[in-house]
Amino acid sequence: MRKIIIGVMGPADAATDQDLKNAYELGRLIALNGWILLSGGGNSGVMDAVNHGAKSENGLTVGIIWTDAHTEVSSAVDISIVTGLGSARNNINVLSSDVVIACGMAAGTSSEVSLALKAKRHVILLNDNELSHAFYKDMGKDYVYIANGPEDAIARGKKVLSKPTSKAIEIERAGKS
Amino acid sequence: MRKIIIGVMGPADAATDQDLKNAYELGRLIALNGWILLSGGGNSGVMDAVNHGAKSENGLTVGIIWTDAHTEVSSAVDISIVTGLGSARNNINVLSSDVVIACGMAAGTSSEVSLALKAKRHVILLNDNELSHAFYKDMGKDYVYIANGPEDAIARGKKVLSKPTSKAIEIERAGKS
Amino acid sequence: MRKIIIGVMGPADAATDQDLKNAYELGRLIALNGWILLSGGGNSGVMDAVNHGAKSENGLTVGIIWTDAHTEVSSAVDISIVTGLGSARNNINVLSSDVVIACGMAAGTSSEVSLALKAKRHVILLNDNELSHAFYKDMGKDYVYIANGPEDAIARGKKVLSKPTSKAIEIERAGKS
Amino acid sequence: MRKIIIGVMGPADAATDQDLKNAYELGRLIALNGWILLSGGGNSGVMDAVNHGAKSENGLTVGIIWTDAHTEVSSAVDISIVTGLGSARNNINVLSSDVVIACGMAAGTSSEVSLALKAKRHVILLNDNELSHAFYKDMGKDYVYIANGPEDAIARGKKVLSKPTSKAIEIERAGKS
Repeated sequence: MRKIIIGVMGPADAATDQDLKNAYELGRLIALNGWILLSGGGNSGVMDAVNHGAKSENGLTVGIIWTDAHTEVSSAVDISIVTGLGSARNNINVLSSDVVIACGMAAGTSSEVSLALKAKRHVILLNDNELSHAFYKDMGKDYVYIANGPEDAIARGKKVLSKPTSKAIEIERAGKS
Repeated sequence: MRKIIIGVMGPADAATDQDLKNAYELGRLIALNGWILLSGGGNSGVMDAVNHGAKSENGLTVGIIWTDAHTEVSSAVDISIVTGLGSARNNINVLSSDVVIACGMAAGTSSEVSLALKAKRHVILLNDNELSHAFYKDMGKDYVYIANGPEDAIARGKKVLSKPTSKAIEIERAGKS
Repeated sequence: MRKIIIGVMGPADAATDQDLKNAYELGRLIALNGWILLSGGGNSGVMDAVNHGAKSENGLTVGIIWTDAHTEVSSAVDISIVTGLGSARNNINVLSSDVVIACGMAAGTSSEVSLALKAKRHVILLNDNELSHAFYKDMGKDYVYIANGPEDAIARGKKVLSKPTSKAIEIERAGKS
Repeated sequence: MRKIIIGVMGPADAATDQDLKNAYELGRLIALNGWILLSGGGNSGVMDAVNHGAKSENGLTVGIIWTDAHTEVSSAVDISIVTGLGSARNNINVLSSDVVIACGMAAGTSSEVSLALKAKRHVILLNDNELSHAFYKDMGKDYVYIANGPEDAIARGKKVLSKPTSKAIEIERAGKS
């Protein structure tokens, strides 16, 4: 039976120090809960930090790589899935995740939050970008939660996973924009 | 030499009456300017309206279809490109467009605005969702313009296209999130 | 109502002189029949030749580009669809085409023939690679036709299009391998 | 550091009894070698059999799913990556694999062999389809090996992995067809 996957999305170059600290802690907590960490798999910013956090607690880490070879991959990624899709791989990130946590905010991260809501995935926002809170809470309603820290984000993730309808996500094919 | 493509993105079921009216007028104006209209190609909402507007002035219309057959295609689409990619096709919509106009706002549309900014495309917002204005203007800076109507959106599109650096968009491969 | 699309697939660097000659003639004939030409859109080999052939008769040409910008596009492509998908775009090429013609043979072309058969598209082989004839005829049965020249390929295309079940291709989502 | 991934591709419904037996044994041997098994992840045919073989020896299994939810997934898949891409996901299968083994032969499998050769991956054919041997050996030369059984396929895989240039696959972005 497939394992639970928590997706953590966040900026590469635009990550703040707080984002990186949060990402590392999220990775740790995901590993301690026995979940698999899925991310964009890159070797910088939130992607790199969250993977290193997970490996610090012997978690299992999956990276969904946007290039077409195992390049620019975080050294803390165990399983490197090479898509060659560019930003179109962002949709794979969210479709594969039982819960999506956005740690920080930038254009790519934002696309992942939007695609997650389009596909009816639960999204947890962990950042200090209040404009994103207002925009996405209005758009996603109960599918969006604003976390006040990594522990709160993980607690919310647990709550979402505890509902059978969230875990076995019932998805109609969703491509209309 | 390839023709100029204007991408118009917008909600299917969630489109308001004003969105539909704006979409039809955008389609008309795009056709009158001799540009090609690109959209998600669906047979409802903004996608359907903008294509009918363009055909009312004998424009050429391209639909980038998310299903894997020529199904649910607007009857006003001339060229139906079948991707079979679901929402991952949203990235094709914006990569192919010289200018992206978001007419209305919903999760799919939002993903297209975010992906466009990620890929350094110019985006014009035409809607009354003020939260989206604040969020995306803060994120995209000069790449985002808030239009007050279809004519204003088209005028801005012309201005963007008049800059050689916008037309021959210089893009580094952009997939980090 | 959407227009008929004929997809022509073939090698870039590995194209033979005969492939290029055939491609140019296929493009001409497709334009003369009033069909839209779809190809990978590149500026070399069969892709470039078939687009130039179509433009020599004022055809309308669509290129499905594998890079993530309007780069390496044939100067004879009217509508450049930028996918950023690498070889994954090959599936779009065949899903979008009412009939697929493989002009020449190489690894990429072969993937397109296979993906076309997977999606139950009719494929016409125009090349002197007898191993490909034997392999694909055995695999695709009535969906595969071996043409003895561009005119024969186009005649076969007309025949396929004349069957209502071929034109409005009835496709169940096909992704199992 | 990322782990070695062996991709096993093969038919769903069209798998023969011998294909299923070979797939199960391949899965076992991949697990015993400590490699990760990657497949299309489906719950039938070669995909299902190879995953069950790997789990019989406590291997780690990754499925790259063509639908847009965790549906039709083999019960022996640990990590289910949901792509929503249809057959376009076949390119991810081969790009992610250090070695590709085709167990059996059908249209989807064939597309994976072709895409693998396009991307300069080493391919091992394990089937009794002699037409495929002739066609792909002619096309792929040293990148194609015809195995006479699961053990031989695994021995060849080891040999390929032992060459540094194969493991750290040097890939130029390859999308021309």
